[in-house]
Amino acid sequence: MHAPQRTRRVDAELYVDVLQFYARQMPLLEERRLEEFLETMTEDGSIEHVPNGWRIEGRSALLTEMRARRGDPEKPLVGEVSARAARAQDVAYYDGIVYRYWFDRMRIEPQPHSDDLLKVSYQAMVSMTDASGKVSFEPTTTVEDVLVRQDGEWFTRSRRVTHDSPHWADKIHNPS
Amino acid sequence: MHAPQRTRRVDAELYVDVLQFYARQMPLLEERRLEEFLETMTEDGSIEHVPNGWRIEGRSALLTEMRARRGDPEKPLVGEVSARAARAQDVAYYDGIVYRYWFDRMRIEPQPHSDDLLKVSYQAMVSMTDASGKVSFEPTTTVEDVLVRQDGEWFTRSRRVTHDSPHWADKIHNPS
Amino acid sequence: MHAPQRTRRVDAELYVDVLQFYARQMPLLEERRLEEFLETMTEDGSIEHVPNGWRIEGRSALLTEMRARRGDPEKPLVGEVSARAARAQDVAYYDGIVYRYWFDRMRIEPQPHSDDLLKVSYQAMVSMTDASGKVSFEPTTTVEDVLVRQDGEWFTRSRRVTHDSPHWADKIHNPS
Repeated sequence: MHAPQRTRRVDAELYVDVLQFYARQMPLLEERRLEEFLETMTEDGSIEHVPNGWRIEGRSALLTEMRARRGDPEKPLVGEVSARAARAQDVAYYDGIVYRYWFDRMRIEPQPHSDDLLKVSYQAMVSMTDASGKVSFEPTTTVEDVLVRQDGEWFTRSRRVTHDSPHWADKIHNPS
Repeated sequence: MHAPQRTRRVDAELYVDVLQFYARQMPLLEERRLEEFLETMTEDGSIEHVPNGWRIEGRSALLTEMRARRGDPEKPLVGEVSARAARAQDVAYYDGIVYRYWFDRMRIEPQPHSDDLLKVSYQAMVSMTDASGKVSFEPTTTVEDVLVRQDGEWFTRSRRVTHDSPHWADKIHNPS
Repeated sequence: MHAPQRTRRVDAELYVDVLQFYARQMPLLEERRLEEFLETMTEDGSIEHVPNGWRIEGRSALLTEMRARRGDPEKPLVGEVSARAARAQDVAYYDGIVYRYWFDRMRIEPQPHSDDLLKVSYQAMVSMTDASGKVSFEPTTTVEDVLVRQDGEWFTRSRRVTHDSPHWADKIHNPS
């Protein structure tokens, strides 16, 4: 057996700093505070879903997409719809749902020549709780982020979400 | 867009200290070591469930409630019951179930004028595994704790659990 | 009430070092990089499943077992089978499934007389996502690891997984 390539470990201060970045960033998305969420990304920040998905770049395009799709937990539960159909039919995918992200296994790779650039990878699961209390889960994912530090604050420059089901975008996400 | 209010970051030693506090506290509750669990709260510690829930204050009242409700994983599985009905009918809600708490996204807010007082917020999910191996989940929640440090140890002074379903307390938690 | 036995707290650098160890180790198992995963264990490393389970010792025996059981996410979904039946019938338990481990509540106990030996305990949940995007969960578990440090790297010497359902090994893990 050969020794596997090992990610260089980072010190506790940096690791915990990044943990706190995500602990601040993701509740903004869960609470539909979309503009504040997007302020945790760079102006040209991008979110990409693979395989068989799409990539959206820039705060402005992301805001348009998120406003149309992120929905309102106070509204009636969205009918049976897939992520792809929600985009095609301009449906608010998460109406009637409180969704939460669960992250685990964060690995940080510092980048050469800059203390202000990091690759961060982790796995993520999305729970969906509807008003009746039913809990379900989106297919699990792994995520690769590039973070940049500007004026002492971290920002997401890019996020690449790899879904563990190749058919994730065509799955009815909230079957009755 | 305006810059969002940012929680001040805390250093790694404090953050990891609090992680270790919860890693010690919550298994005591999962293992029904109720008196030991309550020793991780202050004498006047409180647990509140919102919306449409209740608040119980003080180790003594909490012990009475927990002894009646927390049940025994070795006993037969509790029948279909909601959290509210379990209280009204004095049923051991978690009989026949191993429940585990899953926390994520811990944010720590130090409080002015004291190094020994913290607001800590996180999201929490409860898994339930019955003897047959069936796994289900309670509706997801967010939690706000106030921690105080006495003689170098952290204690929970108050815990406020906000359930993501307004009807959480009336949901049958273990449908067959 | 008497003060509960308290696990001594460890400093942030050690805690985060161990977090990063698991963040590197477990994706190797999820990605079926079995030889690389086993290189994160000592040569005589063991994995034990209790209650009513089995114990396998040594990289070589573990590799044989894992090659036969860990399956291929690209293959058709395995039929209804339990962990015990998969061993008896030599079936690749995880064919057609992306499984991911979710850890929480890590407690570290340094051992006397050595800085290079740790007991680490945590709880773990395994999610299973099939090609259609269906998500299910294995019964929850608690885990006790012994880690040893050699040349500055942590290795798992032993892993003892306690399943929260006594019938975990006979449960159909992927009911249709």
